[in-house]
Amino acid sequence: MNITADRQPTLPPVVKQYYTFAEPPAEQVLESGARLGPITLAYETYGALNTAKDNAILVAHAFSGDSHAAGNYPTDAEGEKPGWWDFMIGPGRGIDTNKYFVVCPNILGSCMGSTGPSSLNPATGSPYGLDFPMMTIGDIVTTQKMLIDHLGIQRLHGVIGGSVGGMQVLQWCVGYPEMVRSGVAIASTMRHSALAIAFNEIARQSIMADPNWKKGKYYGGNKPDMGLAVARMVGHVTYLSDEAMRRKFGRKLQNKETFSFGFDGDFQIESYLRHQGSKFVNRFDANSVLYITKASDYFDVVEPMGKIEDRDGKNHEITKYLVVSYTSDWLYPTYQAKELVKTLKRSGQDVSFCEIEADCGHDAFLIPDQRLTTLIRGFFDGLA
Amino acid sequence: MNITADRQPTLPPVVKQYYTFAEPPAEQVLESGARLGPITLAYETYGALNTAKDNAILVAHAFSGDSHAAGNYPTDAEGEKPGWWDFMIGPGRGIDTNKYFVVCPNILGSCMGSTGPSSLNPATGSPYGLDFPMMTIGDIVTTQKMLIDHLGIQRLHGVIGGSVGGMQVLQWCVGYPEMVRSGVAIASTMRHSALAIAFNEIARQSIMADPNWKKGKYYGGNKPDMGLAVARMVGHVTYLSDEAMRRKFGRKLQNKETFSFGFDGDFQIESYLRHQGSKFVNRFDANSVLYITKASDYFDVVEPMGKIEDRDGKNHEITKYLVVSYTSDWLYPTYQAKELVKTLKRSGQDVSFCEIEADCGHDAFLIPDQRLTTLIRGFFDGLA
Repeated sequence: MNITADRQPTLPPVVKQYYTFAEPPAEQVLESGARLGPITLAYETYGALNTAKDNAILVAHAFSGDSHAAGNYPTDAEGEKPGWWDFMIGPGRGIDTNKYFVVCPNILGSCMGSTGPSSLNPATGSPYGLDFPMMTIGDIVTTQKMLIDHLGIQRLHGVIGGSVGGMQVLQWCVGYPEMVRSGVAIASTMRHSALAIAFNEIARQSIMADPNWKKGKYYGGNKPDMGLAVARMVGHVTYLSDEAMRRKFGRKLQNKETFSFGFDGDFQIESYLRHQGSKFVNRFDANSVLYITKASDYFDVVEPMGKIEDRDGKNHEITKYLVVSYTSDWLYPTYQAKELVKTLKRSGQDVSFCEIEADCGHDAFLIPDQRLTTLIRGFFDGLA
Repeated sequence: MNITADRQPTLPPVVKQYYTFAEPPAEQVLESGARLGPITLAYETYGALNTAKDNAILVAHAFSGDSHAAGNYPTDAEGEKPGWWDFMIGPGRGIDTNKYFVVCPNILGSCMGSTGPSSLNPATGSPYGLDFPMMTIGDIVTTQKMLIDHLGIQRLHGVIGGSVGGMQVLQWCVGYPEMVRSGVAIASTMRHSALAIAFNEIARQSIMADPNWKKGKYYGGNKPDMGLAVARMVGHVTYLSDEAMRRKFGRKLQNKETFSFGFDGDFQIESYLRHQGSKFVNRFDANSVLYITKASDYFDVVEPMGKIEDRDGKNHEITKYLVVSYTSDWLYPTYQAKELVKTLKRSGQDVSFCEIEADCGHDAFLIPDQRLTTLIRGFFDGLA
């Protein structure tokens, strides 16, 4: 038996699964009116679905996340990175897999197993590239709903996610309120500010400025790695905070006593960003960045969020909400979380709100923090 | 007589002048130890130097500024853009040219008339490119000091500047305190935070990722316009604020009723940034961006600022300081201005501080605002 460092019970080895909506109609009509199909979603599950099928929690990943939210694959080499939210999901953890059946799908448009611009276009036999239709957060959630239907789940105990994952939570709540017992939106927003759109547009421009991008037709050749790396560097700065960067890097030099008086990078923050950029190009597709950033820019649930209704009005209580923000998140600052809370309250919804004091910026929800764990455990368990 | 829109007295037509330090030693030794020469500074002056030569104010421009701070050139077509601080400098304005003789030099390393990486290297007859030695804010100020010597000025009534211009102010105060009667640092800092370095590094990486950059040897061929445009977009976002962007752009669409579901840009903020990017490539040199951002990253006067002394101790009173910050400046936030004020107070300096409530971010000092004008006029006139 493998004893983990923290000696906590861990998940048994997990497996990535795939579900393809290939039955007629194989093509789905997207929000733009475009058709897409067949669509495959990669997903993972942790814990067991109970016989009432009412203990499922859908975990929605952020922009560049994937379906590997928790545990390790059977083939994982020792020390290989566990799922991106492993500290939150597992036996006895914030989302307790002894109680809940957790589903984490990779989003439509991504490149981690689900159908996206790097997938083969059945009409041509080549990767879609820019022939992939523009999809929205609404389309992402519609495909997730089909997966949940396929798993035989009529109502989710909860939908939870941070950042773009939080957008999916809100979309679930406005699109399928009768299927969502609770929604937890962390470090998220009802819609992008001009600032958030600006940073996304810079990322897109950086990719499209790379001559290797070739209007998206780079598969099989040189990839737009330079542009994608710069795009990731931009993104990464928005996920941090002034305070966290001062604490972590300040003006510390990289392996040097003095300045190089050259452009190789003197400061640790420079090396760190370059490292983040080059790491990203090895695991993510540039076209997926274009599509997912655009979907999140388009996202706007201010109006529907103010008009959420219990669709059938009889069979179930209204959705319960937990909204969490971080003091140092300047991508989706607390004022945006408060706007969401106000909107929900005005439409008579049951909403709890917590602003967590943390200096690590937007990405705080990806860093182990007992406060968030306790909050989430209490919220989900309190629904029972 | 030309009556201006605001019917205020304006400057007579101004002329860009050049001063070349060509007398032996034609080469200057820079802080890095490298030699550079001959060096030319482009500069403009407004108002008249009095016979005592004690009414001169040096205006230090920001990162991408130039020597054209005020007035119009004789050849200016009607409606052509006046100097970048024209609302501040002129007869009866904040820096009153009826009283003061104003000098604004283009900084070393720039591309607006002063020697920089796009200048001809006398050793090769070709533009320097990356053979241009790395220069510092210290080097920039040393060359400005040589210009002030050349003009026969022994002591400046003041040195004033915003952002990187403010760094030059602080450098003047630590390097030549006996020559500076007063220093006004606006929206500036004693040294870059990791966040500021991060954004500069992203700008540099974006330029260097452009295949047209060719390690700086692009003169005479295709320029790295795409990389430079993205770099400028990044810079531009850091000059604005969340609030200003919400007010100005929000989620307004560009000439459209609905989303395009494509990558041409739907939101006004996207078009605005693209416009800023393409405007910049027509007027600025990519290598100058590399050198000036690096110089500002290296800049750090925390230690010398705490030890400023009256160098001769007899002939003049100590330098008087005015430090101004803006509430919405997240590039050099108010806490950094307060650190400067504290440092100056600890070393017994005479310092006034004002935080201006404004939602337009770092670039606020470039936008007409009577509060700043009044503050500066009062400060300079109060020294008399």
